[in-house]
Amino acid sequence: MSVRYQFEKIVIVGVGLIGGSLARVVKHKRIAGIVVGVTKSRESLEKALKLGVIDQGTNSLGEALPGADLVVLATPVKTLERQLGEVATLTSDDCTVTDVGSVKANLVEAVASGFPSMLTRFIPGHPIAGRESSGVEASSADLFDGRNVIITPGDQSSFRHIERVTRLWESVGAQVLSMSAADHDRILAWTSHLPHAVAFALVNAMANHAESEVLFDLAAGGFYDFTRISSSDPVMWRDVSLTNKAALLEAISGYKAALDELAKLISSGDSAGIEQYFRQSRDARNLGLKQKSLEQKSRK
Amino acid sequence: MSVRYQFEKIVIVGVGLIGGSLARVVKHKRIAGIVVGVTKSRESLEKALKLGVIDQGTNSLGEALPGADLVVLATPVKTLERQLGEVATLTSDDCTVTDVGSVKANLVEAVASGFPSMLTRFIPGHPIAGRESSGVEASSADLFDGRNVIITPGDQSSFRHIERVTRLWESVGAQVLSMSAADHDRILAWTSHLPHAVAFALVNAMANHAESEVLFDLAAGGFYDFTRISSSDPVMWRDVSLTNKAALLEAISGYKAALDELAKLISSGDSAGIEQYFRQSRDARNLGLKQKSLEQKSRK
Repeated sequence: MSVRYQFEKIVIVGVGLIGGSLARVVKHKRIAGIVVGVTKSRESLEKALKLGVIDQGTNSLGEALPGADLVVLATPVKTLERQLGEVATLTSDDCTVTDVGSVKANLVEAVASGFPSMLTRFIPGHPIAGRESSGVEASSADLFDGRNVIITPGDQSSFRHIERVTRLWESVGAQVLSMSAADHDRILAWTSHLPHAVAFALVNAMANHAESEVLFDLAAGGFYDFTRISSSDPVMWRDVSLTNKAALLEAISGYKAALDELAKLISSGDSAGIEQYFRQSRDARNLGLKQKSLEQKSRK
Repeated sequence: MSVRYQFEKIVIVGVGLIGGSLARVVKHKRIAGIVVGVTKSRESLEKALKLGVIDQGTNSLGEALPGADLVVLATPVKTLERQLGEVATLTSDDCTVTDVGSVKANLVEAVASGFPSMLTRFIPGHPIAGRESSGVEASSADLFDGRNVIITPGDQSSFRHIERVTRLWESVGAQVLSMSAADHDRILAWTSHLPHAVAFALVNAMANHAESEVLFDLAAGGFYDFTRISSSDPVMWRDVSLTNKAALLEAISGYKAALDELAKLISSGDSAGIEQYFRQSRDARNLGLKQKSLEQKSRK
């Protein structure tokens, strides 16, 4: 009797933090018959094979894609757009295609305009799980455990492919939420892209300060914790910024209004106003944290 | 033969995170004959006594101060200013007075104008060690281990009192740096007060967003790590903002320029510029972190 896998052959394009972690847990939980990784550099390919993250590896999409019943695109957003053509032509009509990118509308547009026949089987996805460290060395099989994965199926998405992507993520411990690509991009601009921009800007301002060496030296641990996300991959965040430009600029502008309000309170010496402002921030964050932990408990 | 302590009687005014941690390590390392804590609320007094953080406690400065050879003021900046009078009159000319506040120039001014005779023995200090949690429950004896403590003695400070404060902090594992109060305030505005303002503003902007509940729910762990410092004590940070107003507003304005530059790069779609901006931030932070860890190693 042969084992029935959820997927026969999963091809993961881009074996970095997310792709590598997915490959690990898919292998660990025996979700697929075979996990093939595609990376452009020979070095990271060898690393992924040596670490046992993937079963097989290649730097060629043409070699990897035929015979896949699931393709997961885990390359930076801009690279991903360039790979759509090969994916569309080298996979069968029955192959499910998804991605893990942080921006969705641009991708849906690229598929709709370039490869409309793939719209039924391309189900955009975004696991809300990241670390500031990147690369396959940072990957781990429990990265998605208890995390949210947002999928953004469209009108033409086939139910069967939505189900397959949903089951994949649920199998690796995540909870799947569905929303429109536009909603996703607007929300993520606030919850993820804005915080990164804010952190990058803070470190940048300090780096360009005349006394930057003293500043970095005297910054306490709290500062380094706070700016941890500004050590994230510059290429990935460049692509995110460019592809979610409108929503991110709107979030930055909303943020600047909040900062201006604080500066105004400080400038006018409004003691009660400042305290109220800080208190509101603290309470909102604590409440959010509490609700998140309640949700996670209720899921277990 | 009786034991010689570094201090006979240390009075710590304000037994919260910093005061409580100092009390703990002073007791643990037998740096003082007796550690007396002063807190205004009966509840936190009982907590501090129950936790064994202090030897004796009272809510009255008048009761605690006589006979002290070291007074450490560890109350929020504004409270501290109001306590200077009693400290000046109820301690002997031989008693060393220091504080742990995050802003120094205002305090030096308050002492110089109100209690000039205390200038020889009042040595302002600031341990660069904090946590977002506050209160005596959060205190721990190793809080200052390997940390920097900045002292800002003035022209009239007596060498003997500088030495005593320096020795206190070195005895609890910290490294003591000396600079002017103005330099301290300018540097700390960037390394500590600005990051707090930036984090408070980020959470505030999200809290005031029409979809704030969804935003806090979908924010990933990275967001909560990033904004951890916005859960800091609102009263303490209100006082910091008010007393270091000019330097903080200047830092906020420098930060806004950096954020504007990023927004401009994104808005114009300058791919290379954005990547370079992010890369610079990442490299600066990583370099700072590396140098800090080298320093800490060389101290051990």
